[in-house]
Amino acid sequence: MPLPKIENMAPLPMKIIGCGRYMPRRVVTNEELEARCELPAGWIETKTGVRERRWVERDESSTFMGAMAAREALDDAGIAPADIDLIMNASGSPPRALPDGGHLIQRELGLGRSGIPCMTVHTTCLSFVTGLNVAANFLATGQRETILIVTSDISSRSLDFSQPESAILLGDGAAACVVTRAPEGDGSALERYHQVGLGDGADLTTLRGMGTTWPPNDPDTPPEYNLFYMDGLGIAAMLRGAFTSFLETLTAGLSRADVAAVVPHQANAYALRALRRYGFPEGRIAKTLDRFGNCVAASIPLTLYEVIREGRISQGDRVLLLGAGAGLCIGGILLTY
Amino acid sequence: MPLPKIENMAPLPMKIIGCGRYMPRRVVTNEELEARCELPAGWIETKTGVRERRWVERDESSTFMGAMAAREALDDAGIAPADIDLIMNASGSPPRALPDGGHLIQRELGLGRSGIPCMTVHTTCLSFVTGLNVAANFLATGQRETILIVTSDISSRSLDFSQPESAILLGDGAAACVVTRAPEGDGSALERYHQVGLGDGADLTTLRGMGTTWPPNDPDTPPEYNLFYMDGLGIAAMLRGAFTSFLETLTAGLSRADVAAVVPHQANAYALRALRRYGFPEGRIAKTLDRFGNCVAASIPLTLYEVIREGRISQGDRVLLLGAGAGLCIGGILLTY
Repeated sequence: MPLPKIENMAPLPMKIIGCGRYMPRRVVTNEELEARCELPAGWIETKTGVRERRWVERDESSTFMGAMAAREALDDAGIAPADIDLIMNASGSPPRALPDGGHLIQRELGLGRSGIPCMTVHTTCLSFVTGLNVAANFLATGQRETILIVTSDISSRSLDFSQPESAILLGDGAAACVVTRAPEGDGSALERYHQVGLGDGADLTTLRGMGTTWPPNDPDTPPEYNLFYMDGLGIAAMLRGAFTSFLETLTAGLSRADVAAVVPHQANAYALRALRRYGFPEGRIAKTLDRFGNCVAASIPLTLYEVIREGRISQGDRVLLLGAGAGLCIGGILLTY
Repeated sequence: MPLPKIENMAPLPMKIIGCGRYMPRRVVTNEELEARCELPAGWIETKTGVRERRWVERDESSTFMGAMAAREALDDAGIAPADIDLIMNASGSPPRALPDGGHLIQRELGLGRSGIPCMTVHTTCLSFVTGLNVAANFLATGQRETILIVTSDISSRSLDFSQPESAILLGDGAAACVVTRAPEGDGSALERYHQVGLGDGADLTTLRGMGTTWPPNDPDTPPEYNLFYMDGLGIAAMLRGAFTSFLETLTAGLSRADVAAVVPHQANAYALRALRRYGFPEGRIAKTLDRFGNCVAASIPLTLYEVIREGRISQGDRVLLLGAGAGLCIGGILLTY
């Protein structure tokens, strides 16, 4: 069934031909964090829905994780690394200030003299959604044919344990996918993309440091500015109305039953429950929050990875990727897989 | 060295309808820096071609500069801020780790509840070139109609004065432009885009800190990792052959006389002289290095701003934007203005 156009866009033919994932070895249990943050036993799971998460050890850099996920995605696609014509890093956290993470992943993949162009796209938790849309545009104009998108996030090294609300929620992880133009008649496409920016909420989810305003070596930079800060209630208040109209736009003319899978950002249990209130059956809402926590931009692709690997979607199925994050920013994609 | 196949791309109709710039108030002279770095008088100009540069004062944040440049660009285009349908931050340095700079600029422009989507594109010194290409793709598929691209960079707060080679070279500044789809028959277009990634050179121009590998609060992070590092000779050695074949690809079939203006990244005097050796007449190579130094990603758009304001290009003229930067990365665009 043809859907009405939103934001003037025509469907962009695009096919996910491979995906990969890397999760850090170390499992961090709620017991460990409840002891560290002096919280009552069971508090974390009740409050957030997270049972455990993974945190990197020293040898698991963001670039290492991204390259591991990328190798699996390339193997899955059955293509050689040299056949990629763009490496896109779409992560919420940078490995270093410069160069951008795309070039570091290129080097880690042994492609550091290949010439393959690299770039980074950043919209915090929605970086993968934004990156996938950029990729679909490149494929549609014919500028690129085979794009590797890598999302790798580490938040465990910037947690503020005096603010358990976020410290107990966040995890590390990476995922990657290879996308290409869908052949004529194939039907796979990025059908719709919708993003809403609400910069007035910039201070509700933030890491003020690690940039030019509060540089690390400036003695005026408070050490807590180098840590993640989140005001959960403030975010919920600001997003409430905006998310409803965002979702109406993204799903206009589409019945909930037509969506084979919803792959949301794994923000927290509250956000996942809200999707049920919007009419999506629980069995179609993909969930990794319990095992991996909120992995920033990596949450959506690492959850999509499971949905694909477990055979929960088939070619031609409609899939929604969506979420909200720092910015504040709300974004989503309607895919025909 | 094998380069990726040339983006056999069709021209993407795109028109620059407004531009703006903001340069910090404070002029930093060579005399001041020669005293600070204990260098002989006249050494800096001879070595780099820079006579002076601007460095921000405390009230001139990257977001403030970007918004000032954006306001001029919007006025120049004769459009209201609310008529933009995407705000793209395309800078080499972030204002903070998160949210991304696009949302911060949106808020600074008084658009923080407008819903206008925001995003960040990062390829260090070539961020504007990469961002302009992403914008052209969005316009070509019809996904966006009027895009504000903002580049704002501050390097003066991350300089290593024990390494004068880079400390004397870098300046701060911001530039912005508004792009839209060129009307049928107009002729303005992004004709070609070419980018080459060489991640094996990642450590030749780098800022290792301000990311997840060496976070600011980690006692193992050496303070110098929070400062800019550059190995000029190493970069020159790695780029030499690659730049030649890059330029051959970008200008294939085009005579030097057909290019009305070359707007290069203002890397240093050596890089600008090299362009003359490639056959471009000196009078067509736009230069701001002497007055503003190397302003990271802002160099290309703030130099383009002068070329446009001074009436050195007219509609239909061919313009080359190009450069090399951290990554290592070489990139360029051939525009019909």
